[in-house]
Formats: sequence, structure tokens, C-alpha cells
Amino acid sequence: MIRVGVNGYGVIGKRVAYAVSRQEDMKLVGIAKEHPDYKARMASGRGFDIYSSDPSGTDIFDKAGMKISGTLGDLLPKVDIIVDCTPEGVGEKNKPIYEKAGCRAIWQGGEEHSISNLSFNAYSNYNQAVGARYARVVSCNTTGLLRTLFPLKSEFGINSVNAFLVRRAADPSEIKKGPINALELDKRMPSHHGGDVKTVMPDLDISTTAIKASTTLMHVHHVTVELGRDASREDILGAWAKYRRIVAVSVKDGITSTAHLMDIARDLGRGSGDLYEIAVWKEMRAEGRRLEYMQAVHQESDVVPENIDAIRAMCGAEADAAKSIDKTDRSLGIGIAL
Amino acid sequence: MIRVGVNGYGVIGKRVAYAVSRQEDMKLVGIAKEHPDYKARMASGRGFDIYSSDPSGTDIFDKAGMKISGTLGDLLPKVDIIVDCTPEGVGEKNKPIYEKAGCRAIWQGGEEHSISNLSFNAYSNYNQAVGARYARVVSCNTTGLLRTLFPLKSEFGINSVNAFLVRRAADPSEIKKGPINALELDKRMPSHHGGDVKTVMPDLDISTTAIKASTTLMHVHHVTVELGRDASREDILGAWAKYRRIVAVSVKDGITSTAHLMDIARDLGRGSGDLYEIAVWKEMRAEGRRLEYMQAVHQESDVVPENIDAIRAMCGAEADAAKSIDKTDRSLGIGIAL
Amino acid sequence: MIRVGVNGYGVIGKRVAYAVSRQEDMKLVGIAKEHPDYKARMASGRGFDIYSSDPSGTDIFDKAGMKISGTLGDLLPKVDIIVDCTPEGVGEKNKPIYEKAGCRAIWQGGEEHSISNLSFNAYSNYNQAVGARYARVVSCNTTGLLRTLFPLKSEFGINSVNAFLVRRAADPSEIKKGPINALELDKRMPSHHGGDVKTVMPDLDISTTAIKASTTLMHVHHVTVELGRDASREDILGAWAKYRRIVAVSVKDGITSTAHLMDIARDLGRGSGDLYEIAVWKEMRAEGRRLEYMQAVHQESDVVPENIDAIRAMCGAEADAAKSIDKTDRSLGIGIAL
Amino acid sequence: MIRVGVNGYGVIGKRVAYAVSRQEDMKLVGIAKEHPDYKARMASGRGFDIYSSDPSGTDIFDKAGMKISGTLGDLLPKVDIIVDCTPEGVGEKNKPIYEKAGCRAIWQGGEEHSISNLSFNAYSNYNQAVGARYARVVSCNTTGLLRTLFPLKSEFGINSVNAFLVRRAADPSEIKKGPINALELDKRMPSHHGGDVKTVMPDLDISTTAIKASTTLMHVHHVTVELGRDASREDILGAWAKYRRIVAVSVKDGITSTAHLMDIARDLGRGSGDLYEIAVWKEMRAEGRRLEYMQAVHQESDVVPENIDAIRAMCGAEADAAKSIDKTDRSLGIGIAL
Repeated sequence: MIRVGVNGYGVIGKRVAYAVSRQEDMKLVGIAKEHPDYKARMASGRGFDIYSSDPSGTDIFDKAGMKISGTLGDLLPKVDIIVDCTPEGVGEKNKPIYEKAGCRAIWQGGEEHSISNLSFNAYSNYNQAVGARYARVVSCNTTGLLRTLFPLKSEFGINSVNAFLVRRAADPSEIKKGPINALELDKRMPSHHGGDVKTVMPDLDISTTAIKASTTLMHVHHVTVELGRDASREDILGAWAKYRRIVAVSVKDGITSTAHLMDIARDLGRGSGDLYEIAVWKEMRAEGRRLEYMQAVHQESDVVPENIDAIRAMCGAEADAAKSIDKTDRSLGIGIAL
Repeated sequence: MIRVGVNGYGVIGKRVAYAVSRQEDMKLVGIAKEHPDYKARMASGRGFDIYSSDPSGTDIFDKAGMKISGTLGDLLPKVDIIVDCTPEGVGEKNKPIYEKAGCRAIWQGGEEHSISNLSFNAYSNYNQAVGARYARVVSCNTTGLLRTLFPLKSEFGINSVNAFLVRRAADPSEIKKGPINALELDKRMPSHHGGDVKTVMPDLDISTTAIKASTTLMHVHHVTVELGRDASREDILGAWAKYRRIVAVSVKDGITSTAHLMDIARDLGRGSGDLYEIAVWKEMRAEGRRLEYMQAVHQESDVVPENIDAIRAMCGAEADAAKSIDKTDRSLGIGIAL
Repeated sequence: MIRVGVNGYGVIGKRVAYAVSRQEDMKLVGIAKEHPDYKARMASGRGFDIYSSDPSGTDIFDKAGMKISGTLGDLLPKVDIIVDCTPEGVGEKNKPIYEKAGCRAIWQGGEEHSISNLSFNAYSNYNQAVGARYARVVSCNTTGLLRTLFPLKSEFGINSVNAFLVRRAADPSEIKKGPINALELDKRMPSHHGGDVKTVMPDLDISTTAIKASTTLMHVHHVTVELGRDASREDILGAWAKYRRIVAVSVKDGITSTAHLMDIARDLGRGSGDLYEIAVWKEMRAEGRRLEYMQAVHQESDVVPENIDAIRAMCGAEADAAKSIDKTDRSLGIGIAL
Repeated sequence: MIRVGVNGYGVIGKRVAYAVSRQEDMKLVGIAKEHPDYKARMASGRGFDIYSSDPSGTDIFDKAGMKISGTLGDLLPKVDIIVDCTPEGVGEKNKPIYEKAGCRAIWQGGEEHSISNLSFNAYSNYNQAVGARYARVVSCNTTGLLRTLFPLKSEFGINSVNAFLVRRAADPSEIKKGPINALELDKRMPSHHGGDVKTVMPDLDISTTAIKASTTLMHVHHVTVELGRDASREDILGAWAKYRRIVAVSVKDGITSTAHLMDIARDLGRGSGDLYEIAVWKEMRAEGRRLEYMQAVHQESDVVPENIDAIRAMCGAEADAAKSIDKTDRSLGIGIAL
């Protein structure tokens, strides 16, 4: 049993904790969080042990009348690996704490590649993470791109990729973030996402541009690929069909928006109404070596199975990528047909 | 076993069908729907038998390669009761069809009271529905008002009610509806909701005003009540605490918005990430006989348990309101503490 | 000629500066701002002199290649009065600077009443401001309430007021603020707005509750008043018709939302497409002494004419409220019929 | 003086009417509209003569107490040219009416190219429209693409274009349209916009993809061009700088979103707070012959000057494109530097 702790219990942290709690070969030792808010009460309701991420003590929880198990400092010695799901930039500050505690650590895509020099995506480089002490699971958008590009690269080769990312501006529960009514450019052009894909696929020729839209549900990517050889639409769909973490959908079934995808996800009854899979539309353009497709990325959840696989790889519990992915997918109900 | 059909498989219909399928004393015979879209595929995935609501045949489903069980005309003879969840106004047109088929029928709040002359809310008038052939489950907003007013009326008496309703403008999957950025007045002042409450509580002195906001998640009501006698905040919360379909929440726990409530609902893992309960904020004003409180109503789901109780009452399966409510609530996991 | 400076050139500051520049008895000496951004370029394009609000110098503007006239310290000695339009809380910190410079000062509603102990609304208490050194123009929402309540109080008397405020969550250009899709409660119940109205009308019995909606255009208020005597709908509209800063609109003309009001405002060609007037709907409930009405408040601009009147009163340029209001209204085109 | 009528007085119609009224060589004879709503009152306030677009009479206006000048049938004989700004598809039905009346006619981009077999953009093909009886001004998005592509084609040549369009889902006053919170795919891939550009530039190799976002302000395009020869960023900006209907903006000035652009437009005090110019961001990628740029299109107004030029060309009032464009631009204040 791999003993796992989760530091940070927001959008990603609570999902990783839930996913860990569903693995047969893992034990969720506890979660660390800052505030005794409703999320803490929900964690408690799930039977998770709570620790204060404030090293100085548990006062804030005591005052709220919430009995907890100690501080992050008490949690770390009990775990083999800590999954850091703290806000962007905080993870960097936590590294010395984890180093001192001697546990393995996983960070999320908000941190820089340099935090671990190992950026992770299960399909793309599971093997590199086997036995690693530190790793970083790449962000939701990067994960989304890697998921669908990896099969294309494996099967057809890729000469170059251009992707335009229409990003959701905030997560559903992030009520302080806007814009309420605008399209906002990413200040960098090209955006950082292409470079982030290269932390996992260093040889890929990829360039990305991004914009933020007033929506909370999902990101949508328009991806233009020059493949290494000709491929038809059927070839492409066939290549993706081998991977459970990709689901093909069609406007013919009335799935024309991210709202429809989240409507479906809620009915699947998994996790928090999540869509772990990257949704690709069957309506695409495949002409010779040129391919254009659209995909939707559920930013709250697509990295969750990747974190589970990273845990397994790093802790040496499973050296075979396919076997780990299989376990993870079965535990979370991944691999649906729509 | 009560044999139940559901006609219309949109936001409400799919939830009622799911809820029926979870009752020990009911059997979901099938659902009728118009289009062979993703919702049909999801229904099929849940093992529900599908019927075409088009009386002329199943062509549209055949062409989409979807094998179904017949038309609405084939479904009706097999059921004791049909729950009509078709769009506003369509239910009225379906009445002669149900009459001819001889089955009991429930309509939703989009139809007029006169369709059945029996408007239903489980807490308020379950007994009236026992054995009834036709009934109408009142709308989400009306249900929300009745849920929290019924306990107040029972315990303290009510002299008068004024409520201001901030309505969500569209459901999450209704992508064609706006406004994207505006506040839109209800064209009637007072709004129809007060009158609709009176179809269930005829003696209540109630007036309502409504506005639509650019959000999809939940309605929020600000309710001002003159009680029959003095009541403190603790009295009020105590009265509500006896009813499982009301949940008290607090801004102190960080629950300051409808986004937080839906975040919680998704983590509860019930139905489609639903909040069947009406959420009332513990932060209220109770001064003498005057009470002001805020509540949030999940428009997609609060009427679902009411439909289940209505089925049971009408089909004579349970004459005792409390027992039916108890069964329904247990089957759906209703009755949470936050 | 009253020499006026404006400190802060955001949503309110740029509008006050523009309005000052249109007064025959005022001269806009300059505006102070922090950043050499597009707003600075626009100010320059309007012929306004720009000063850096950073006391240490003009470096940041120099680096951006923007020639400006000095710092706030250079501006203050040249003005009779400074209108502080800096963000909430900053105005408080600026007070000692203005005291030292010896100029009169006006703050906006984001600051506390105690900053000047004189909260201002032109209709309600112009006279109190005549000759005053410091004053605070109350916020957009408070101004909106005072505008329509003052005529009611004058003509019919008011026993009590209850208002529910549906607030726009952010201004159109505030792209960092949310929520994108939620209704967010004001953490205080009652909200502070009632108390703020009392800083101008101390004897009024008023209570307010507020919620934020995902929109940028306007606030909407639902106001319930118990008048001192009976009044019909025509009486009410007649009372308001005497005041140019109120405009009556009707759903019969298709004006059912804040989007329609802003559509109209843009076509008026005034200021920045502003609606200086408070819009009241002719559709109201007036029964005996009880009155319920809806009004919309353009948060970006309704306080602009109030600032102009406050300047005139404080600088002793006009002792008669009606005459100042008349000048202001003519200069800005206020007083429209829809 | 060219005698002009405008049929349809919505988002585009009211702007075209306003623009016509500002031309020295044109006279706005009247506007035709369906409903006696606030827009009719505003038109009246501007001194425009109103005609009912209902051929059977003026009853609906009479009942609303609005005195108007007759029906569309009365308007047509008085004009040299009618600008049809009716909703998509209605223009087609109006064609026989215009043919019978013998007047020239302009349609908007919602109609098919085949309605006139002459699709118009002032920079691209003014000459083709000189003396023409019928023409169609292409849509806002197509106009936006043509505006910035024409200078590139003229100066550097274009081998191919790929554009991704993030469309605003509704205009600000279209409160019935959504989605409130979603990204919605265009059902066609490629989208129709590329083909529409070819109705004006038949030889261009262009492909477009589109998505709709929950915003009302502007469209944003990401355009990838393979030029006929190498060009640097300065070359590109230099080419565009020769055209007044393009304005270059920079994220360095804080212009990072469509909200900022509309904030600026409102302060310009033109039309209805409009941005007639296509905004291009100075932040682009120009590498050899490959160019990537972002542009924002104000869907409510960019076609307005095009309509004015089309009128002038078709009525033979000005054979020289540059001279007409010059007149139009001066009359509307087009040609700003930000």
C-alpha cells in the first residue's frame, strides 16, 4: 500500500484525494488544507483525515470547532509521497519542506518544469517517472494536448503542430475571477503551452496561442497538425480509439458545446461529475498529411488520473505504464463511449 | 410495483427517470423522447427502454441506428402512470392522449394549475393527491418557496410573505438561451410565482417579484415573512431542521454563492450532481414576528423527489406522506448536513 | 472659474474629469494617474494635463515615452478642489496630502462617511455642502436610492423602506473580477447600503439586502416603501417627473432589461454612452400607502453629476441647489424622455 | 443628394441610418421598422421619419400613439437606394418588393452572395460596385478579415490563410440569445467565413474555423498567413498603417481584451460608442513569410462605413474608392491612433 498525502484541497486536490481513496494499492493518509471551510467539512464527511497546512498549529480549525489530526508537519512523516495541489507558486515554496521530510513529491502544472526536471504524462513518459523522487504532472491544457498528440505521433509521426486554445477563464467555484463579459488575450504570443508540451515531448515542433473566454466549464483547443504521413479521418479516429482517456463525440448527436459535455459528465456519476477523458469531435478535417481537429478539456479533472499514475510509477509499485493506466482507469470508470 | 413511464427526457425528465429507477416500489417501464441524440444514448446506457414520442413511428431513431422499443402509444398501455416532462405547453396537448390511454398522469410546473386542478408539494398537500388520477408538481421556484414556508406556517403561522426571486436565466445545457450579460425583469409585477404558491396553499397572503440574471446554476430567493408569532433565528432554524429537504448553510463556512452550493452538490455524488434540498442561509434576520431569509433553489432537481412522492400518492402505494417522503429521501440520499 | 483636479482616472475619475471639462464655471487643471496605459493616452487625446500620482516622480511615464506635467504634488497647489477617484481605501490615505496642500477635497462612496462627515447627494442635501472643505459623494447604489426616495419623501412622506439590490458584479472594463456564472450573497445581511443612505437621510427607516450577479451593465433595485399617505401610480410618476435625474421607462416599449437601457444610453451620445439618470419602471405596484418599484442604476455614471454639484456647492460658486443642478444637467444633456 | 431609405432598424440598421444622416451627399428619407418600441422612439428623437415595414398599414404604430409617415410601400418611391438591414433571411423575401419599386438595394451579410452576385468590401472591390443596382455588404467577420488581409495581399502577396474565429455569441441588446456559460462549436468545419471572404477575393486560399463564446462585445480572430514574400513585424504594421479602418493596439498599453477596446470606443464619443476600425494587436509573430496575428472585430459597427461606401459607389456619386472612403471616414471620425 502506497501511503499518500495531499497538500492543498481545492479543485485539483480534492479530486486527487478522492481518486487516491479509490485505488486498491494506495491509502490516503490525509489531506492538508488552510481553512476550516465547507471543503474541510466535506473532506471530513468523506472520512479523510485533515491536517492544517499552517505549520504553526491547528488554531484556526480548533476555533471553528473542527477536530483535525495535526499539521502538515505531522502528515509528512506518515506518507511515502505527497501530492502538492497548492496554488500556483506555493508548491515551489513547499519543496524544502518535502525535501526535509524525505518523502517523494508530485507538483501540478502551475509550477515550473525546473521544480523536478521531470514533467509527466502517463501516455507519453510513464517510464521516465518510475522510481523518481520528484515529478510534476503537467497542466490541464498541456495534458489535453499530449493525450491526443501522443497517439498521432506514435502512429503517423508529427512534423509540426499549431494549436489555438480557447481557455475557460475560471473554475466554476472560483467566483472572484473574471472576465464576466470579454475575450482576453494571453499576454504572450506564442503562449507558454507549446513550450510546456515540450517538457514532455522535447522533439515536437509545436506552437500555441491562447485566449480566455467568459466561461467556467472547459477549455476548447483547435489543433492543426502536419502528420508524418497521410491519414484519413477514420485512421485518426482509429488511432485514438485505442486510448481510453480520449472519447470521440459528434455534433450529430447534439454535442455541440462544452455545456453538453458537462451535462453528460454529470450523468456519468463519476468523481465530481468529471470528464477525465479528452473529448475530440469526430467532425474534423483530414486531408493528406494535414489534420485539423477540435477537442475539449475538462480542466478540473483531466490531470487526476495522471496524478494517480505518477504516484504508482514514482513509488515503484508498477513499472509497466499500461498496467498502471489500466488500474487507474478501472478505478475511476474511465473509458466511455458516447 | 408501480409501473412508471416518463415522457420527455430533458433536464427534469432524465432526473425523474433516474429517481424512479432507484425506487424499490417502482419500475421504470420506459422513457419517451423526440430525438436520437446523446441524451438517448445516455438513457440507453442506463438500461432504460426508449420510445419515440412521435406517434407516427420510430423512423428518426431507426435512421440514427438506434434500436428503440416503439412509440409513446406503445408505452402508455404498459404503465400505471406517466410523468410528463415535456416542454412548457406541450403537456397540455398530451392530456387527451393520456386520457385515452387511461393511465394516471403527472405534469410539471410549466403547465397551468387547471390541467389537473391539483397542484402538488409533498410537505404541503400529499394527502390531497392520494388516489388522484391527475396532478401537477409545481415548478422549481414554487417548490422552493413551499418547502421553507410550510414549516414556518406549521410552527409559527404566517400573516404575509413577500419574496424577491433572482432567477437563473437558463439551465446549464440550454445553450440557446440568454441573456449573456444583463438583468431582465419579469414582465409581470407581481410575478406569477406567488399565485402559483397559492395553488397549493390557497390561504397564504403572498406576493412575489422576479428578475432573471445571467447565470445557469440556481435561483436565489429573498423571502420576507410576517410570522403569526415571534420567533428567533434559532427557532426558525429549529423548525427547518425537522425537514430533510431543507439544508442550512453558512457564509462562515465559505458558502457565499450558488457556485459553492453546486460545487458541494457535485461532490455529494448523487443523481447528476444535484442538490435536491433547498439551501437556506443561517445568516438571516429574525426580529419579533418579522423574518428575512435567503434561500437557493436548484432548478434542475428540487422537484424530482416531489415527482416520486406524487407517483406514490396517486397510485395509492402509500397513504402516509411521511412514509413516502422517507422512502424517497433514503433512495436519493436526501438529508445532508453541511 | 473653479480650478479642479481629479486624482484617479478609472471608471469614475475619467467621467468626472470629462464632466468638469464641460462646465462653464470650472476648469480641469489636470488629472493624476498611476500608469501610462491606454487611459492615459485617451486623457491626453482629450487635451487633459496628466500628473503622476506617484509622489516620487514621473519615471514610469517617461519610460513609456509619455510627456506629463509633473506629480500629484505639482497638481494640488494649482487647484481649488481635488476630486479623489482612487480605488476604495486609497482615498483615506490621500487625506493628509490634501490637508497639507490646503485644497478642498471630494471623495467617492468607497470611502467611509467619517472621512468628511458630510455625505452628499444633490437633491437631498446640497445646502449642507455649501462652503464645505471636505465631502463624500455617496456610492452609485446609495445615489440611486436617494434619487428616487427623495421625491417620495418630499411629496408623500416615508414611513419605511426595504430594498433588495441585485448588483452588477464588475464594471465592463474590470476583466479580473467575477463571478462568471453565479449569484453571490453580500456577506452582511442587512447590507451596508441602508446605513449609507442614512448618512444623507438620517431619519429614514431603511433596510437593504444585496446580491451580486454575473453582469457588468447596471444594478437593479426592487424597492418597497411604506409612504406617509396614499398615493397612486400616477401620483408617484408625477412626483418623479419633476426631477430630471430620474427617467421613467416601460416594458411596453420593450425596455425589459439593463441591456436595453445601455443600448439606449449608447445612442444618446453623451459622455461614455452613460445613463446619468436613474431609470424607474412605470410598471409598479402602488396600493394605498404601499409602493413597490424597480429601478436600474448605471454604476459607472450616476454619481458624475453629483460630483459636479458637490464641487460647485463646496467652492461657494452657487448657493442654490436648483441652479447648480440645472447647470450640471444642461452641460451633460441630462433630462431625457424615453 | 442621394436619397436613402433604411429597412430594418436593429443593431445594424440604426447605425447605418445614423451614418447616412451624417453624409453631406446623402439624405436619409426614412427608416422602416416593425414595432413601435423604444427604438422607434429613439429614431423619432433623432428626427428620422418612420415607416411601418408592415405593408398592410400603420395600425400597430397608431395604437401605440406614434405618428409615422406611412408604410415601406410609401418609402420606397422616395428613395434612390434602400439599405436592407432586416434579420437574416428576411432580406431575400424583400427583393421582389425592391425590384418592383425600381430602387437600388443593399443587403447585409446575413443574406447569400447570390442575392446580388456582388459582395462588397470598400478596400477590396469598390470599383465593381460602381453603378451596380444590387449589392451585399459582407458580414462583420468577413469584413474584418478582408480589412486586414487586403493590405497584406496588396503589399506582400498571400499564399494561404487559416483563421480561427472566436465569435461573440450575441449582440449586447440580444437578451434572448445564449450561451450564458459555454463554448459552442460552429456546426460546420471549416466554417462558412472563409467561403464568404472568397465572394470578394475569389482567388484567395483561405480556410476558417469558428467557435462561439459567452460574450457580447466583439469577435476575436487568430489569423495565420503565409505571405508571398518575407515581411517583418514592422513591415506588416507599416502596411496596415496606410489604412484608416485598421487600428493597431498593444498589450503594453493595457489593451489585453475586448472589454478594453469597447471601453475606449465608448470614450471616443462616435456613433453608439462604436469601433468602426478593426483592432490589430502589435504583438504578433512575423517570421519569414509566416505571419500570425490577432484582431478584434466590433460586430455592431465595422460594416457601417462599408454600407456608406456601397451607397456612394452604386449610386454613381463617386467613382474613386479612395475619395469615397475619405468622405465616409471624415464624417464618422474614423482613423484614430491609440
